[in-house]
Amino acid sequence: MPDVVMGKHTLIEFHGCDRGVLSDTPAVERHMRAAADASGLTVVESVFHRFKPWGVSGVVIISESHLAVHTWPEHGYAAVDLFTCGDARPDGAVGYLTKAFRSAGVRLATHDRGFPSKGGGP
Amino acid sequence: MPDVVMGKHTLIEFHGCDRGVLSDTPAVERHMRAAADASGLTVVESVFHRFKPWGVSGVVIISESHLAVHTWPEHGYAAVDLFTCGDARPDGAVGYLTKAFRSAGVRLATHDRGFPSKGGGP
Repeated sequence: MPDVVMGKHTLIEFHGCDRGVLSDTPAVERHMRAAADASGLTVVESVFHRFKPWGVSGVVIISESHLAVHTWPEHGYAAVDLFTCGDARPDGAVGYLTKAFRSAGVRLATHDRGFPSKGGGP
Repeated sequence: MPDVVMGKHTLIEFHGCDRGVLSDTPAVERHMRAAADASGLTVVESVFHRFKPWGVSGVVIISESHLAVHTWPEHGYAAVDLFTCGDARPDGAVGYLTKAFRSAGVRLATHDRGFPSKGGGP
């Protein structure tokens, strides 16, 4: 646990998702940008790629840090992570994506990001 | 802990870093791409932004997932995260960035990413 917290990083697992949605690169990008909006985050830029034979990877750069996704359509699984600074809360994005991906189950864990207040050792 | 592990997500805190390096957007981008190389990862694309008055945010999309950074030069702190699939190991990237950022201290934690083998509940 860092003494000085600079951000919150939430790792979110969406499983039991719609395979068609998770393999549709434009849809995934549109949903990720909308998810940022749903959490009141400011989108700066997004970059998405489709990998063969399946799977989409993409990142939305937000003023408050980033929102990234990697999908495995063949498993109905999407790994999302949301790094935020300040008071931003992931709830809006998580709720939006649960519906957009038609996810049957969501797990998430939030980790404080930052550094110790003293010393430099590991 | 997921039953089915699809990737490893390593959250890395670099503190006591060189403030000049952390505020130099082209240098941070160059170092992040080189860090991916140092871990044997395949760079697909990178996108970096400088925020006012300080701070760089950027992501390197790699075939094996992503490598992201957010810097707080005024605190000598950089938050990096590396999401990898398969056998990729973060060691090379962490070692490279420790030197490149001239970090006095590094902390890291690796989290399995994936989903439960049964059921859909949270």
